[in-house]
This record gives sequence, C-alpha cells and structure tokens, in this order.
Amino acid sequence: MRTRAAVAIEAGKPLEIMEVNLEGPKAGEVLVEIKATGICHTDEFTRSGADPEGLFPAILGHEGAGVVLECGPGVTSLEPGDHVIPLYTPECRECDYCLHPKTNLCQSIRETQGQGLMPDGTSRFSTLDGDPILHYMGCSTFANHTVMPEIALAKVRKDAPFDKICYIGCGVTTGIGAVINTAKVELGSRAIVFGLGGIGLNVIQGLRMAGADQIVGVDLNPDKVPMAEAFGMTDFVNPSEVEGDLVPYLVNLTKGGADYTFDATGNVGVMRTALEAAHKGWGESVIIGVAPAGAEISTRPFQLVTGRVWRGTAFGGARGRTDVPKIVDWYMDGKIEIDPMITHRLTLDEINTGFDLMHAGESIRSVVVY
Amino acid sequence: MRTRAAVAIEAGKPLEIMEVNLEGPKAGEVLVEIKATGICHTDEFTRSGADPEGLFPAILGHEGAGVVLECGPGVTSLEPGDHVIPLYTPECRECDYCLHPKTNLCQSIRETQGQGLMPDGTSRFSTLDGDPILHYMGCSTFANHTVMPEIALAKVRKDAPFDKICYIGCGVTTGIGAVINTAKVELGSRAIVFGLGGIGLNVIQGLRMAGADQIVGVDLNPDKVPMAEAFGMTDFVNPSEVEGDLVPYLVNLTKGGADYTFDATGNVGVMRTALEAAHKGWGESVIIGVAPAGAEISTRPFQLVTGRVWRGTAFGGARGRTDVPKIVDWYMDGKIEIDPMITHRLTLDEINTGFDLMHAGESIRSVVVY
Ligand SMILES: [Zn+2]
Ligand SMILES: [Zn+2]
Ligand SMILES: [Zn+2]
Ligand SMILES: [Zn+2]
Repeated sequence: MRTRAAVAIEAGKPLEIMEVNLEGPKAGEVLVEIKATGICHTDEFTRSGADPEGLFPAILGHEGAGVVLECGPGVTSLEPGDHVIPLYTPECRECDYCLHPKTNLCQSIRETQGQGLMPDGTSRFSTLDGDPILHYMGCSTFANHTVMPEIALAKVRKDAPFDKICYIGCGVTTGIGAVINTAKVELGSRAIVFGLGGIGLNVIQGLRMAGADQIVGVDLNPDKVPMAEAFGMTDFVNPSEVEGDLVPYLVNLTKGGADYTFDATGNVGVMRTALEAAHKGWGESVIIGVAPAGAEISTRPFQLVTGRVWRGTAFGGARGRTDVPKIVDWYMDGKIEIDPMITHRLTLDEINTGFDLMHAGESIRSVVVY
Repeated sequence: MRTRAAVAIEAGKPLEIMEVNLEGPKAGEVLVEIKATGICHTDEFTRSGADPEGLFPAILGHEGAGVVLECGPGVTSLEPGDHVIPLYTPECRECDYCLHPKTNLCQSIRETQGQGLMPDGTSRFSTLDGDPILHYMGCSTFANHTVMPEIALAKVRKDAPFDKICYIGCGVTTGIGAVINTAKVELGSRAIVFGLGGIGLNVIQGLRMAGADQIVGVDLNPDKVPMAEAFGMTDFVNPSEVEGDLVPYLVNLTKGGADYTFDATGNVGVMRTALEAAHKGWGESVIIGVAPAGAEISTRPFQLVTGRVWRGTAFGGARGRTDVPKIVDWYMDGKIEIDPMITHRLTLDEINTGFDLMHAGESIRSVVVY
C-alpha cells in the first residue's frame, strides 16, 4: 500500500513529506494506522545528526497512537480495530530480560530495531522508486501507516483520545515510571526534580500521585513555574538566584537532602548535583536525561559509601504492554493530566514547525494529528 | 585507673606503648576490658597521616572484643561480665537514621566521635602527666581498657573466642554485610569481587552463604587464590593476564555481566570496571573500599540508564547491636570462617610488627591479644 510520511532523508535536513510504499505485515507483525504522534527531543537528536547511531533515510517518530488495520500470521493478542500505542521498548514476555523482575529492557528485537529494520532484517518502507527507507526505534510514527511487531504494541481502551494518549508512548510513561517503577517513591517522601520540561513535569505528577510531601523543581527558566506548580511542584529553585553552592542549598531546603532526586536535563554536571543533593544514608538519584555522546558523570565514592544510590531509567522502567494501558486508564480516570502539556497541534505537512517550536522553547509537546 | 595502650603520638610515627590514665564511665558509658583487637588498614590510614581528618595524640584501634567491667549511670542493656564487641558505627535506635529502614549510619554521636571525644565532648584518656589523649572511631581498642557509649557496644555470647570475633567488629561484618544487607544477593546469583584481601574474602564467604552460583575473584596477586577458593571463589581472573579490555572479558565470563559486583580495592578505576561489569538491566555494583582523598569515580550515564545501579556500603550496612551478635552466632555455628584469616597473633608490645606485616602483604589479619 501507499501512505504519507515525513521522511528524514539525511542528517540535519528538514523532514520531507511524501508518499511512500508500505509492505503489509509479515508473521508476528501488525499494520497500524497512526492517528496522532508527538514530536520528541529524541527524534530531533537523530534528525539533527547529533545521534552517532542515527541512520538515514528513515521515518522518525516513536510517540504515537493508532488503530490496528491488519494482523500478520501468528498474531494472537491483537485484531483489526484495536487501539494501540507503539512501544520503542517492546515486551516479548519471553526473553531473559522480560523474565527478570528488575528490568524492562526487553532484548528480543533489539539488534534489528537498532539497525532500523523489522525483526526479519528487512524494512517495510520504501520510496516510490523502490529504495528502502529505514524504520526508527521500531515505531516510525511520522508515517500515517506503519508496520510493527506485535510485541511492540500496547492495546489500550477505545475511548481514549489519540491526540493525548500518544504522549504516553514516551514522555508521560518515562516521567511517571521513573517515580513509580524505578525509584519506587514512598508516601511522604521529599523529592527534587531537575529540569521542568515535558519529562520533568511528568516526574512531578508521578511524585504527586505517589504522595510525595515535598516536590522541589529546579530550572533556570522561571517561566516554567506556573505549569510545574499546577502539576504538583511545592518549591521552585532557580540556580542562578542561589548564592553559593547549590547542593547545600538543596540539602537544607529538603531538611537533610531529598529522599529521591531526578535528573531530567541530560547535563552531567546536573546529574552530579542531583546525586549529591540526595539524603545521606538513603537518598536515591535517578538519571532520566540522555547525555551528549562521550559525556561522563563523576562524584567522590564517599557519596555512595555514605548511603546514596545512583540509578538510571529508560522508558520509566515500564513494561509497555502491561503498564501503558494502566497509564491510559489513569489519564481517563483523571489521576494524571496530559492535556495542558499538548501545547500545539499540527498537520503532518506542518511537522517541521514542531521542531522549530521545540528549539524556540515554545512548546511542551507538539502533536501531529493525521 | 591506669591501663596500657599503644598511643599514636603523631602522624607517621610508630605507636608508643605506655601506661595511660583512664577515667571511669560517665552516664550512658561503659568500661570495657579489651581482650583482643585486630589491626586494620583504617588504623594505618590514620597512623600514617594519610587520613586528612586524623587527630593526634590518639589511641587507635576499632576492631576489638572484650568484657564489660563497669557501667555508668543509666546503662540498662549491659552489665559487668557481659562480652561485647565495640562498634564504630553505633546503633542508638532513636535517631532519624536508626529509624529509617534503608540505612545503618546512626548519627547520634557522630560529631563528637569524629573529634575523638566521648558524647559529652571530653576524653576519658590522658597521659600520666594529665594531657588528654583522643579516642578513635569511638573505640580505641589499642588500649587494654577503654570507655565506650552503651549504644556502641554489641553484646555477644560468652563462649565465642575474643581473638577471633574481634574481627567481626570490622572486616567480617563489612564484607558479609555488603552482600547480605546492602546488595541483598539472591540465591543463584553471579558475582564478581575485586580485591582478595581481608574484605574481599569476607565478601566471598558472604556470597557463598547467600547461595551465589558463580563467585569470580579479581586480583593481581595469584598467591591469594588458594585462600579465596577455600572461602568459595569459583573463578579467578588476574587482570594482568587478560588480553584486551577487562570489562568485556568479565561480562563474557559471567554470561552477560554479573548480577552483583563488589569493589574491595579502594581504587576508583577498579570501581568503574566493577560497575561496567555488572549486568545490563539489573546488575548492581557496591563500593566497599575507601578511595584516596579527592579521588573521583566516573562513568558514562548510559551505564546507569541501561539499568545498572551504583551503591556503596559502610560497615556492611549492619546495625551493630542487632546484627553483630547474629554474625558471632554464624561463626560459632560454622556458617562462616574466621580462623584462617587470623594469620598472626601479637602482644601489645609487638603491635608495630602488625603494621609491618600489613605493609609486607604477609598478613590477612594480625590480632593483638592482651
Ligand atoms: Zn521520546
Ligand atoms: Zn523480552
Ligand atoms: Zn577496620
Ligand atoms: Zn541512631
């Protein structure tokens, strides 16, 4: 079949909107009509050429929601008409990782996914001339139709709006999951969130849901305060207004250090501050942000020997097929908010505007609605 | 009263054996006759002057066992004749730290202890001329008699030999506790231990007790192999004999990385190797060794984002009054071994020989028997 897509022809160039060929689903695969997709920093990381592992030409996009149109042979958990959210971290429920209680990093299709291919080692997308176009993060939601492995699709309720729940496919789950799955924040905890962008806001609402007593937000941009407060932030710290070192300031503000700290900046200096602002004896710091290639975190080992714990999280520690439908329920039940974070709605033809808005810091999330 | 002690007069000098004055126990304090004491690298760290926080003159020693002679006012948990092990990490059971489920770092007397003083801010030791001599780590087991806070004494069974269980006051608990309390190693785990000195051997026997399936020891000195194997090591790796990088070698040896790794070297480069040799998705690395002042650990945050956890431990995460008596029972029941690690027995007059043996690498543990 043919479908419309925004194609990343080469690194650093705007996406090109065009018709492409899409082959039907093979065994274990599913054809999905994408109804909406968010535009994420990770897409931009690849589009811009900053990602050393980026491959071109490719159809980017990994934060979508849509409807199953057709199932390939052997697909048993989905049928046409099901509503789904694509998962860049699949959940096969069979590999050593899926069967281990401490991780969500299913490895079953990792190698081909990293090469921009379906599990059989080929691509379903091609130009009208027949040249292959690569998949991206196993999703390629910047196409109106895509083919995905069954194990990489979370089946969700049909009354949830596509243009909101698409964000659960990345930022919402990453932020809330970091609190609930990775840190396992307890009721009454004190927490610090570094970076009040989309991920940071979702960390904040995860903390509110977990019953944290104090939720400190740290950001250089005071414009972010009203939204962060609306999501549950109790204290704001602008490092540029703190005299002296930030760590002792934060330790004092949190009565000895935070029980949990979260880095949502990707800055390795901030990651160190986040660790050291955690409480002696038991404070845990979670790295969510993606650092530039080659950047390293560091600290004195004394920080760990005196009881701090340094962790990281990917996709919020969520097992997508199991956890994403629950997060959709939380949204529909009003336990979490998404609507205020969807600041811009675009058509596919306007997708490059979404990247411009991201660079200008004007959007939290731009969503393309097909 | 008077007692005999080995006094560290100033940094870098041999200890001097002399008579000293010892004041009786004040409220909440206990007079203990030390029967045996180990000589630990931490004593040497201070004696040598390497410890930037070292204070002189002081009576070092923190790894002892003895008998209660007299209790000051208000002491309720001990009575004369009780056998005790001094605790450099006390357990008051009342402070925020003691009441927190995730830490053993009781802070109730931390400030005075760090100044070489009893909780009332004074010293019980003095020269025969009346000049004060400082306590050390709240213990000062290099004196035949010492005064300690009640909360820093673990009451243990009376049939346990002092010249063996003194080692439970530091190295044994640190190593075994790192496995059991800090890492919480599960049955069937794969583990790597870096450094096969006294701490490393105790980590190994902790792993054996926890039911680890694979216990890899890493050390540059092959002379340490027989003892490590006797304690439970299943595989030995000498980094000087590995071609190429050590991390992929260890990852391969442990079928994808170890579930748990332990640094018992104090070398920050080894700490990084230990983290990176932990299994993607769930491997946890525990820092036990004490690094030189100012040294920093570092790694790429990607190591944490892909699921590794970096921790540290002090006194093996043990709550001394609660856990040390249990470890004495384990020793008496034959669940752990201590005897082969006590390689040398000395008199107090020979104590400087113990430091010489440590430097020569000839001892695992030298014990002074009073
Ligand atoms: Zn994303
Ligand atoms: Zn899997
Ligand atoms: Zn010691
Ligand atoms: Zn305490």
